Amino acid sequence: MHRHTSITGLTFAGLLAFAATAAGEGDLRTQAKALFGALPKDMATHPLKPEQVALGRLLFFEPRVSADGTVSCARCHQPALYGTDALVKPIGVQHRVNPRNAPTVLNAALQISQHWRGDRVSVEDQASQALTGPASYGNPSQEAAMAKLRAIPGYRELFAKAFPGQAEPITAENWGTAIGTYERTLVTPAPFDAWLAGNDGALSPSAQAGLKAFIETGCASCHNGSGVGGAVYQKFGLAEEYWKATGSREIDKGREDVTKAPADEYVFKVPSLRNVAMTPPYFHDGSVAALPQAVQIMAQVQLGKTLPDGTVKDIVAFLESLTGTLPAEFATEPVLPAAAFEAPQPQPASDAGTPAESLQR
Amino acid sequence: MHRHTSITGLTFAGLLAFAATAAGEGDLRTQAKALFGALPKDMATHPLKPEQVALGRLLFFEPRVSADGTVSCARCHQPALYGTDALVKPIGVQHRVNPRNAPTVLNAALQISQHWRGDRVSVEDQASQALTGPASYGNPSQEAAMAKLRAIPGYRELFAKAFPGQAEPITAENWGTAIGTYERTLVTPAPFDAWLAGNDGALSPSAQAGLKAFIETGCASCHNGSGVGGAVYQKFGLAEEYWKATGSREIDKGREDVTKAPADEYVFKVPSLRNVAMTPPYFHDGSVAALPQAVQIMAQVQLGKTLPDGTVKDIVAFLESLTGTLPAEFATEPVLPAAAFEAPQPQPASDAGTPAESLQR
Repeated sequence: MHRHTSITGLTFAGLLAFAATAAGEGDLRTQAKALFGALPKDMATHPLKPEQVALGRLLFFEPRVSADGTVSCARCHQPALYGTDALVKPIGVQHRVNPRNAPTVLNAALQISQHWRGDRVSVEDQASQALTGPASYGNPSQEAAMAKLRAIPGYRELFAKAFPGQAEPITAENWGTAIGTYERTLVTPAPFDAWLAGNDGALSPSAQAGLKAFIETGCASCHNGSGVGGAVYQKFGLAEEYWKATGSREIDKGREDVTKAPADEYVFKVPSLRNVAMTPPYFHDGSVAALPQAVQIMAQVQLGKTLPDGTVKDIVAFLESLTGTLPAEFATEPVLPAAAFEAPQPQPASDAGTPAESLQR
Repeated sequence: MHRHTSITGLTFAGLLAFAATAAGEGDLRTQAKALFGALPKDMATHPLKPEQVALGRLLFFEPRVSADGTVSCARCHQPALYGTDALVKPIGVQHRVNPRNAPTVLNAALQISQHWRGDRVSVEDQASQALTGPASYGNPSQEAAMAKLRAIPGYRELFAKAFPGQAEPITAENWGTAIGTYERTLVTPAPFDAWLAGNDGALSPSAQAGLKAFIETGCASCHNGSGVGGAVYQKFGLAEEYWKATGSREIDKGREDVTKAPADEYVFKVPSLRNVAMTPPYFHDGSVAALPQAVQIMAQVQLGKTLPDGTVKDIVAFLESLTGTLPAEFATEPVLPAAAFEAPQPQPASDAGTPAESLQR
């Protein structure tokens, strides 16, 4: 059961027992506080440097560093779509289709790791590795990406201020650090947090009933912590094969392809459910468009249960209470230093790796 | 000379004479006021309806209506890049390359028409026609685009409010009206406007010298009106063939391909120069990346002059004074109604019309 261990050291089973004890007390808020905890003000592991946050915000919206000049972090993590792209699978440089659905960047740093299979250790790691991802920024090397960034005069001073004392501060590591540091500020307090903090009116009776059902049904056994998920790995399809319920076109072995451990077959990171109502479609392959259907499928394939329609409705009301306020530093685009993009021999579109048909469910 | 007639009815020659008279008075501000006029508060042709502006702002950022779900107006007109994409030529659905450089949407409605060849009569017309542009939204029909919009539940009420009394308000015409109405609010007052209004300190001595040179050299003979351009058509290459100076890879016949009139060979709409310092690369084919070089080329191919470096520097300082403030309703992305994008059988990337090599200068 090593894969079910959360970052807090509490096991899956331990949390369930803890929740059951709390439930015995009959106080939903006490129980919820124990399971979820308070949303932090930011997701810093050390004091955030304002110059790095400000630079990272620019770089997040910067497309000129990608191989064809069309991909920034914001291409797949659009503010208008709550940090996602609403696509089944994101489309990157040269119209290449990424293998899995784009999760929101909001609250992303609360999670134990990044990407569905947890193969990015942090938001910083994700940002750095994206530079050379064939279907993300598509650069032949991190150095090639940095050469483009160095060609935009306005960045030199900004990097020097954010990373003082370095002979050449425009590096892929600093790119990752700046973007990751910015992303660590992107927390979205929601009505659920107001309710957890004592505001009784912040959750409707239906949402409160949904929270109770969410815990009692067993959803919170995996979707716990302040991210309401994101803290553990879990097999998708504990009770039955997931692809039969989701109608997935392909079977994804998940984390097994990363760790090569048979125990990790069909294992994915449990996603955070914050802002889930704003970020369809659902699951690692974007195979399900509607939230009520996603809730029902989860109960079925993870817990072997079929929920009454009213319970699904309540759980959806609870999930909607996880929709937070967009941070102003995310909703508002910064102005980037002006410079034309000098296209570095982009490949013709016909060289695209994954055909766009894989967009289809 | 019909093609040189501005919307105000003043001819090219008439404006020159007018400017010369004003110059004789020795008052740069009086002369500039006569040539450029005050920037309006908005670009409305009739009172703007707030519900249409608000809806148009949502639709501007809406990618799910495009053929592959990746193209919104904001894809090529990014707030972070002052309403452009910094590309030589914009890349739309299925990685198809558009034929000409993307101008900014800021102040666009000040112009006599839209697109470099003036083949879109208004911002509303441009927005509607983009729905079926093969390299923009790429829909087989406007109706196909509207079907996708109707599938997003949140839009029904918003369209009904913006276009009351219509049995089916979600139409391509209303799409164009809403986006155009929003775009008519996107004016960017700049230091130049403050100076025109009497604030002496708003322009540096170099920028004032540049304004004087801009007028005396003859630039303002075409780049006039409150858009500092956008009011007339003109042949690109009056003094010599443009492509020899710009290094353009292809020769674009411009408006002749639209009107079939030989007199329109190499004729383009004179672009507005507002925010020009923030919107490289330059010219209809994005063939020139640096603003000083673009200024020198214009003097050479339009006016048969070679400017001293100091004059170019001053003119650039004047052009930089046309960089305005981004409207908050543009810089800040609105939150779109949540709904997953159901990919409507996108064509594989290999079907892309124009190969991406044409991105190259």
